[in-house]
Amino acid sequence: MNASQSGSESQVKSRRIAIIGGTGPAGMGLALRWARAAETVIIGSRNAERAHDAAARIAARIKEEKGKPAEVSGLENAAACAAANLLVLTVPFEAQASLLRQLKPAIRPGSILIDATVPLAAGVGGRASRTLGVWQGSAAQQTAELVPKGVSVAAAFHNLCADLLNGDAPLDCDVVVCSDDPAATKLTRTLAAKIPGVRAIDGGKLENARIVEQITALLIGLNIRNKACSGIRITGLPPAAYLPPPET
Amino acid sequence: MNASQSGSESQVKSRRIAIIGGTGPAGMGLALRWARAAETVIIGSRNAERAHDAAARIAARIKEEKGKPAEVSGLENAAACAAANLLVLTVPFEAQASLLRQLKPAIRPGSILIDATVPLAAGVGGRASRTLGVWQGSAAQQTAELVPKGVSVAAAFHNLCADLLNGDAPLDCDVVVCSDDPAATKLTRTLAAKIPGVRAIDGGKLENARIVEQITALLIGLNIRNKACSGIRITGLPPAAYLPPPET
Repeated sequence: MNASQSGSESQVKSRRIAIIGGTGPAGMGLALRWARAAETVIIGSRNAERAHDAAARIAARIKEEKGKPAEVSGLENAAACAAANLLVLTVPFEAQASLLRQLKPAIRPGSILIDATVPLAAGVGGRASRTLGVWQGSAAQQTAELVPKGVSVAAAFHNLCADLLNGDAPLDCDVVVCSDDPAATKLTRTLAAKIPGVRAIDGGKLENARIVEQITALLIGLNIRNKACSGIRITGLPPAAYLPPPET
Repeated sequence: MNASQSGSESQVKSRRIAIIGGTGPAGMGLALRWARAAETVIIGSRNAERAHDAAARIAARIKEEKGKPAEVSGLENAAACAAANLLVLTVPFEAQASLLRQLKPAIRPGSILIDATVPLAAGVGGRASRTLGVWQGSAAQQTAELVPKGVSVAAAFHNLCADLLNGDAPLDCDVVVCSDDPAATKLTRTLAAKIPGVRAIDGGKLENARIVEQITALLIGLNIRNKACSGIRITGLPPAAYLPPPET
């Protein structure tokens, strides 16, 4: 570390994002966007080899684009949790609870877990344009019940179209972040704002995740009927509400 | 009627929009916008005198703006239902079911009822940023159970900020229309597109109203935290999805 580096820079440099269940379209898209933004990304998968392969594909793609290597690696999910204190959960809803129970011992105290899970009825053989009722109110609140004490949960990234995330163009979509921990909201907004085109908006408490999760079902219905990749923008807020929070 | 008038023009001219519970901020805003767009509007209220006064205020405002009178009048709610076959329901959720039961005999067969009701928890002393669970799935589906047979229900206009509706500027918000009757969706989209700035989007079946209603609670939370009048835009759809349907 160079003596001239500020504390803030070193903190950013030391940030490692583990994307749990990261080999699906949403996880791969987020990994690509963050690796492009020079974040250090770990792709987690049940299968370590699949995680390695996914990371190698993203690394190769960014190497070709930028001519320099990206900080992206692949690990089995539990090892990914152990290697990072910023976790992003991108698994289908039907895998969420059992995976979290399994990973609980590996999740580091003080971690922040960002949940992007949407309780789509498709997970139990229903339609992707319908959601399941979750007893706790939302998939994110279920997650908050299942993580170790002292781990903060934020809900975000539900409404980004995975096809667009995996592309090169800026996204035309806002990310609404819900959390009961202001530090988790802030960090999640910072990461969201690293994705070109995305404005990260503080959506209030974690309980509001139930609304943001449901919006995905509405967008999926629009996508099916219109053969499109739809998104949402929130209008009418003061300019500061759309800006990424300053990194401290 | 002039012999050169087309059937379509005469149909538009004969359209009368009754806004039931129309003296509140949302109803007044819609009445203002539609009266400005040369639609024939009837403001309904439990109290005929209050309805007359509200209509007179809008008429005076448009007279001053345009120098010519607007087609806006006021009637008691049941009389308003009897005088129109296009009804827009803008009452607080806690008044919705009892009002519909009372108005049922007055609603004309073949009418279209557009429900803008949001089941806010504020209606039972809770927060305006939270919603109540409605057994039928949404306030609009409750309405569909309560209207006479042969009356079509569409859900729309939940997400428009009443303060902005009552102003002069174009709105920066889309209206997502949900209905099981394509004719009701089409007419509702036509009316929504009369409001400057609004793009009217087919949101699919009436059951999707549960999502659109909940978005209002999210926006109210954003408004409270940001002292703002927020709205939503749907992005990524093909251009035709945003255009008003051709009037036939």
